[in-house]
Parts: sequence; structure tokens; C-alpha cells
Amino acid sequence: MAEEAAVRAQAETVRRLKQDKADADEIAKEVAKLLEMKAQLGTDEGKHKFVLKTPKGTRDFGPKEMAIRERAFKAIISCFKRHGAEVIDTPVFELKETLTGKYGEDSKLIYDLKDQGGELLSLRYDLTISCHSWGDDSFSCPSLALSQVPFARYLAMNKITNIKRYHIAKVYRRDNPAMTRGRYREFYQCDFDIAGQFDPMIPDAECLKIVHEILSDLQLGDFVIKVNDRRILDGVFAVCGVPDSKFRTICSSVDKLDKVPWEEVRSEMVAEKGLSPEAADRIGEYVQLHGGLDLIEQLLQDPQLSQNKVAKEGLGDMKLLFEYLTLFGITGKISFDLSLARGLDYYTGVIFEAVLLQQDNEHLEEPLSVGSVAGGGRYDGLVGMFDAKGRKVPCVGVSIGIERIFSILEQRLEASEEKIRTTETQVLVASAQKKLLEERLKLISELWDAGIKAEMLYKKNPKLLNQLQYCEETGIPLVAIVGEQELKEGVVKLRIVATREEVNVRRESLVEEIRIRTSQC
Amino acid sequence: MAEEAAVRAQAETVRRLKQDKADADEIAKEVAKLLEMKAQLGTDEGKHKFVLKTPKGTRDFGPKEMAIRERAFKAIISCFKRHGAEVIDTPVFELKETLTGKYGEDSKLIYDLKDQGGELLSLRYDLTISCHSWGDDSFSCPSLALSQVPFARYLAMNKITNIKRYHIAKVYRRDNPAMTRGRYREFYQCDFDIAGQFDPMIPDAECLKIVHEILSDLQLGDFVIKVNDRRILDGVFAVCGVPDSKFRTICSSVDKLDKVPWEEVRSEMVAEKGLSPEAADRIGEYVQLHGGLDLIEQLLQDPQLSQNKVAKEGLGDMKLLFEYLTLFGITGKISFDLSLARGLDYYTGVIFEAVLLQQDNEHLEEPLSVGSVAGGGRYDGLVGMFDAKGRKVPCVGVSIGIERIFSILEQRLEASEEKIRTTETQVLVASAQKKLLEERLKLISELWDAGIKAEMLYKKNPKLLNQLQYCEETGIPLVAIVGEQELKEGVVKLRIVATREEVNVRRESLVEEIRIRTSQC
Repeated sequence: MAEEAAVRAQAETVRRLKQDKADADEIAKEVAKLLEMKAQLGTDEGKHKFVLKTPKGTRDFGPKEMAIRERAFKAIISCFKRHGAEVIDTPVFELKETLTGKYGEDSKLIYDLKDQGGELLSLRYDLTISCHSWGDDSFSCPSLALSQVPFARYLAMNKITNIKRYHIAKVYRRDNPAMTRGRYREFYQCDFDIAGQFDPMIPDAECLKIVHEILSDLQLGDFVIKVNDRRILDGVFAVCGVPDSKFRTICSSVDKLDKVPWEEVRSEMVAEKGLSPEAADRIGEYVQLHGGLDLIEQLLQDPQLSQNKVAKEGLGDMKLLFEYLTLFGITGKISFDLSLARGLDYYTGVIFEAVLLQQDNEHLEEPLSVGSVAGGGRYDGLVGMFDAKGRKVPCVGVSIGIERIFSILEQRLEASEEKIRTTETQVLVASAQKKLLEERLKLISELWDAGIKAEMLYKKNPKLLNQLQYCEETGIPLVAIVGEQELKEGVVKLRIVATREEVNVRRESLVEEIRIRTSQC
Repeated sequence: MAEEAAVRAQAETVRRLKQDKADADEIAKEVAKLLEMKAQLGTDEGKHKFVLKTPKGTRDFGPKEMAIRERAFKAIISCFKRHGAEVIDTPVFELKETLTGKYGEDSKLIYDLKDQGGELLSLRYDLTISCHSWGDDSFSCPSLALSQVPFARYLAMNKITNIKRYHIAKVYRRDNPAMTRGRYREFYQCDFDIAGQFDPMIPDAECLKIVHEILSDLQLGDFVIKVNDRRILDGVFAVCGVPDSKFRTICSSVDKLDKVPWEEVRSEMVAEKGLSPEAADRIGEYVQLHGGLDLIEQLLQDPQLSQNKVAKEGLGDMKLLFEYLTLFGITGKISFDLSLARGLDYYTGVIFEAVLLQQDNEHLEEPLSVGSVAGGGRYDGLVGMFDAKGRKVPCVGVSIGIERIFSILEQRLEASEEKIRTTETQVLVASAQKKLLEERLKLISELWDAGIKAEMLYKKNPKLLNQLQYCEETGIPLVAIVGEQELKEGVVKLRIVATREEVNVRRESLVEEIRIRTSQC
């Protein structure tokens, strides 16, 4: 339609004026003209058909999901703060050239912004190290240059060589995630890292303590934290006669040991990867080992391994780590596991991964397939690679698999009878008779000013039954009932929703009474 | 270079394999080949030149900025929770067709994502109503269809007709903001809205109470909340003889009254906008009025206004509002101000805007030009426009100008002597002699497990002076000093950093002692 084209042209005029920061009145005039043209065209502005969906791979968080999310974040953040971590945040997008390396193999997973003039931008792909995270094989690991950008850029830009920080933020990947399994294109990452030159294994031990504290606090069920060291693994491969060029591919075979039996892994090594059967068998003897300090001591006495320089270093540090973890009292949940390989080349020392153990008395219809919920390790070489002068910043860090934790908590809640509260309201200010709106407003204002979380129904004369029902539905534990008689006596009737008990409380003691009665909630 | 092209081709192969979810080993093989090719080309992967800047209009938040940000959010969120609000979150991008209307005049301000196949997406432009916010004239107001999308889509998609929610999240505008004045292309919005059919002015009064509580709590200095009603303004224009077609442009002139004197506004109305001098003078009599209940009563008696139906409705509601605000005890900071117009057509009833008052005893070098820090109003028609069946969802809401608040707090902090802490650490676990690392680890673990925020230096044998210095620098108030003698006696020496006082505390009382001594901090 010609009219539509005219409207569009006028819209463009308005747009250009605004862009040029033209005189406000001139803009107003043109806007008025535009509106008039639209009005003549019909009121289709008012009928704008609204697209009622979120983009693929994303979701809204409603109040219920947010309550769960906040519960998980609270446990995690309070742990990070308990350990003296600072917090940083970076923009959701970075310059494209910051994000992608020269060859950018994985750039199809990156959301680019449209070229609208000016800089070329992309949404951040991760915060620290992607797949640092939780041995996640459904996201393909990006090339070095793609990852850890915000943290590395932040350190380099601000010449920081020493920081203990956490960063919790959304990252974006144009993948095809299985959303039913708690995977999205927009998802949170939750990273804690200690950067700086320190005495061996002290920060490393703290990372494991943190994972232990968080998983215990979240009550996700029994778990184990597998620990290994990249240097031990390299040493094993070397003494078993794996050629240097095959380290990487053999490593990826070993990584499968948590899912498939040794025989399968062995045959893959031999048949597909061309490793000699003897070498494979020797690897098998090592990588099926797991234990604690005793195993470390045993390997330190191992005639071959003890001759390998890197393995010996790794084992020495592993011993130190276990001593520290013993002091922390958490070795019960730690397993030195030689099959733990983890995907990335970043790691230069300790690596670890926390796995939830499937409960036997699983009462859920479908057992949760949760896999690992935290992981990390030491990456001493990484940050230096991005520094102009190559200054090294040794780092060790942990990434909490927060999205998996959300989905476990969500599924668990659904399966249970528990009704999650979406507000923290302590008391509903109600009335038993009509014409008490003003008294309710006065009382609720007193409560708000005293820091009490209080609600009331936005009705002049709500029925008492409706007010009580609202408390049942939303989980508000107390009702402060204003009535003619109570007003005369200077008291408020306080009703405990759960027990239906009612007590008269003097107005001046009400705040204190509410505090006491809701402190156990 | 031909080699580079070959590498690029190989990278593409890898990319395609990953995209096609090819066999992991096949991918590994091709990756290995790629790495080898790169290695032959030279180690330029390792020398990847890092672009050390954040995109235009964005910034990192370092620990200091985050501490300020958290302080502001804490005050705001605890207020929202005190009022029983739920919280929601939506994806950072929406379908482009959801965001832009048919004509999309302002789409140049929207960040579009690149078309990489699949849906066309754009970064969210705002959360509820843009410029709802704080009378912000440097961001041009977008067309109806651009705004309030996430909230309206969320309500419509989930058929919610009744919610009290807040939403704090980043939004994105390709504007040319003055960053020195605290304006960015990536910035937070912080919206609280009450949606639902309720008795008049009760939720409206609560919104004003919330603004009052937040601004008081943040201690930003003296403030006033200007209140008006769209219907009163419309009534004034009508009785002053402004033609319907000029309502909008005259409204925008009136909006300037907080910056320029009436004479200028008048001459603009007459000379530029073609209003009759008589009409302008009559408007002038009204819009220069401001006051409280007395002014409302006066206008209710006004021979012309009292004859105008919408004005009368607006004045009746304004009276009710002031009665409620009196019960809340906040009328001292409220000004019924007939010059308050606010930019948008959304509003259907009450409108308001909170303005910080410039202190006379300004000790800052440069007085802060802060303008308004919160604003909002009632918009009963808006959500219904986006519902397929046109179901109305009356709403009233407030947007806190959180970015301005950040920059005020930042500037204030810079001007003051106060050193902001970036951690919450209560105690540093230190040692006075060598060889006490294990004892420090044992003690800090006990403290962490008891919920105490504790740090230690990651050194085997740190000097006491360095440990004390660390506390001075980071503001840690207490030092728990482990020493040979103290260990024998079963005590820990607790040093109060500020006073240098030292007391011996029995090990079993240490947690309690730390709690008591840091609860005042």
C-alpha cells in the first residue's frame, strides 16, 4: 500500500531527526504527523500482534524459578564471600576480535551482533574457561582463543596479577542444547578463581574446600570430588610408551572411563588410535587406580613413574594437597582418580571434578542423570599468553555447574510436596470488619518502617476469609488482624496461619513479636 | 599466504564436523591436524594480540564498583521484598518481531543480532517502560511497540493478570551516551510494578512509599517526589482551550518548566506552537501551582476544572492518594506539581518523579547534576494492547534510576575519605612464627565451617608485618594469630586492627568472639 510506504518514510524521517539529535520541537512535530498518518491508516498500532515466545534455547524465569535460583546463588555466593572473594562483572558483549582468534574455528557457536556501524561485537561465550566447567561434552570445546576472554581481558587490561574473584553471569552459545536436561543457549556461569604467584597447593586446596562446602550446603545428595594432576597423567602416558603425538587422543579415550568399561576404552586405543596393546595394558593398570594418600605413596614408590620428572612433581604436589585436605577434614569425599583427564589443554597441574552419586533409594520416577556439577583446575600458562609481555599469572579456579544445580533443585521440588515460597512476606495486615482500610494502611506503614516484610490486599473491604486464603496460598505465616475492639484496647490480633492460634499483642510489641515468630521460618 | 588459507580451510573442516556432531575421534584427529598446521605456521596462536578494551559505551565493574553496586541493590531489593514483591527474569534478547512494531521508528537504537540462521533476535531495550524511568530526555523515547516488551510479553504469554514483581537487569541501547555522566550503552534497569484490578490508589500509594523508603535508605540527600495525574493535565489543557491535536506538543513544553522559566515556555507555546496567548496564560496559571491537599481542594473548587470530567476524576483520586500518603507519614516529601508532565503517552493516571535536591552546603568540587532518580506512574491501557483478546491489565509501577544512583554513590565515595571494602572478611588467620601453616589451615577451616568469613595469606611462612599490612589494606577488622605459646595454652591471640588491642581468646570461644566483635562493623 502506498499509504504504508508513506508512513514508513515518515517514520524514517523521525528516526533520522532523533539520531541527529535535532531540535525537540521539530521532532515532536514530525512525530505528531507520523501519528496522524498512522491513525488514518487504521489503529493497527493498537492491534500489534505480539509474538508470544522466548527465543530458541531461552526461557523466562518466573517467580518460582527465581526463588530456586536465588536459593542456589545464596549458598554459592555466601561461600565465595566466606573465602574472601571479590566480585567483578564484565559487559555481556566483547569486541569480536577480542573473542575470536585468528582462525576462530568455533565461531558458529558465538552470537555475533549485527554490523550496525561502529565496532563488531559478539556476546560473551564464557567467563573464564569454557568447559573448565563440568566435563561437558555436549558443548564442543572452543579453541583457546575463544575462551576465558572476559577474565583474561580484565586482568590484562587492568594489569592485575593477583586477585581472588568470582563472577556469576549469563553467557551465550548458539548450540542445540537439550533443554529438557537443563541446557540452554542463554545460561549462567559461576566461576571462582585465584590468580597470583603463591606457595604450592594452598589455593588449590581452598578450591576443593569451596566445592565441598557448596555441595554440602545445597544438599544435593552424596557426592565425590575426583582429583588428578595433568602432570601425573602426562607421566603415565610417557612411561607407558605413548608417543607424544598421541597424548591428546589417548587422553580423550581415558576421559571416557567414567561411562564405559576399560575393555572398550582399551580396544578404542588399540584398534582406532593405533596404540600398541602393551602400551594400552600398561595404561590400564594405572588409570583404573583410585584412592587417597596411600595410592599417592604407592605411586611415588612406583619404579617407572618415580623416574619420570613431571609425574614425580605432580605426585609430590598431590601428596601436599592431600595433607591440606586432611587438615580441612574433607578427604572423605575426595578421590585421587587417575582416570580423570578432563578435556582441555589449558590445565597445567591439579584438575578436579565433582560428581553427584546416584542414590539407591531413588524415589523419583525417573532417575536424574546429572553428571558432574563442578569442576576446575590449575592453568598457569593461560593468562600470560594474552599479555603483551607474556607475564605469567598462575591461576587455579573452579566453575560451579549452576544450571545443572538449578534443574536438579527444580526437579526435586516438583517431585516433593514442598511448596516453594516466592516472597518472604512475614505478615499480612488484615481486617475483620469493613471500613478499616485506613487502619490497615497505618499499621502496615509502621511495620514497613520497622523493617518487617508485610503485605495487605489492595481492597477497601476485603473479606477475612479471602485474606486468610491469600496467606495459605502464598505461605505467609502470620496475619495481623485489625478490628474495632482491638483498636480500642490498643492491641492487634496476631494469627499463626499454620496452627490457627490467635493471640492479642500490644501494638508496641507487635514488631518484636513478629520478628520472634518468623525467625524460625 | 597459502599456508594460512590451508589452516583456515582446515579450521572450517573442524568447525563443520563439530556442527554436525561428528564422531569425537574424527574431530580429535582433525583438530590434531589443525594444531600441527598451526604449529608449522608459527606459534601465532600463543601471540594472539589481545584487544584490551571494552566495547563502546560499556565498562567492567571491578571489585570497588561492584561493592557500590551491591550496596545500592541491597537497599532496593530489600525494600521490594519488604513489600512482598516477587522477582522475574527474562532473556537478554527477544525475537526482533516481538521488539519492533510494524514501523519501528527507533530501531536504530536497538542492538540487533546478526542473522546466523534461525530466528532474528535483538537485545532487550528495556524491561517495562522505557523512559517510564526518570524523565530522561537524552534517550529519545521509543515508539510504543519497542518498549515494555519483556514484562508485557511475560504477562501475556503466561496469562497473568495479577502480579507484584520486580525485575533488575541490564538493557542495551545503541545511543551515544555521555559516559562521564553515568550513561552507558549497557546499563541496568530496576523496575517494580503492580499489575491487577484493585481498589483505587492503594497500589499507587505503595509505589510512592517505596520510592520514599529507597531514597531515604540510600541516604542520597534531600529529595522531593513530584506527583501529578495525566487526567488533571488533560483537563487543564481542555479548559484552557488547547485543541486536542496540540495536547502532546503543549505537554512537552510544560515538561520543560523544571529547567526554564515560565516566560520561555510561554513564548515557545505561542510563537512556535501557535497556541493563542490567552490559552497559554491560562495554562500558566495552572502549571505553576504546586502544593498538597490544600491545592487539591482548591482545584476541586475551581469553577472551570471542576466542570471537566477527567480532571475531576483525577483530582478525586489525587485527594485519595494524599489521604493514603498521610497515613504513610510521607507527605512531607511529596509535592503535587501541575508542571509534571513526563514524556510518554502510556500513562493513564498518576505520574510521579523523584528529584534529588541540590544541597547548599555542597562540599564537592563540582556540584552533581543528578536530576531525577526515580519515576513512574499508572498505565492501565498498555498491557491490554498486547493481548490477543485485548484483556486489560491495569498497572502502576516505578523505575529506580539505578545507574544515576551508582554514579552518585561512586562520586560521593571518591570525594570522601571513606575507603570502600571489596570483601566482607571478618578475620585474617595469621601466624607469628614459621612452620605454622598447618595450624593456620586447621584454624581457618574451623572458622569457615562455623560460617566465619576468613582469609589467610597463601604463603608457608608469611611475615607477621605483611599479614597485618594486608588487613590494613583490605579493611579486615580482626587478626587471629596462631603461635607456639598460644597453641600450648589452647588459646588464639585476637588482634583488633583498628586499636591494635590484643586479647587471648580460648579456642572454643573464638567463633563467638569474632561474631560479637564484627557484628558492629
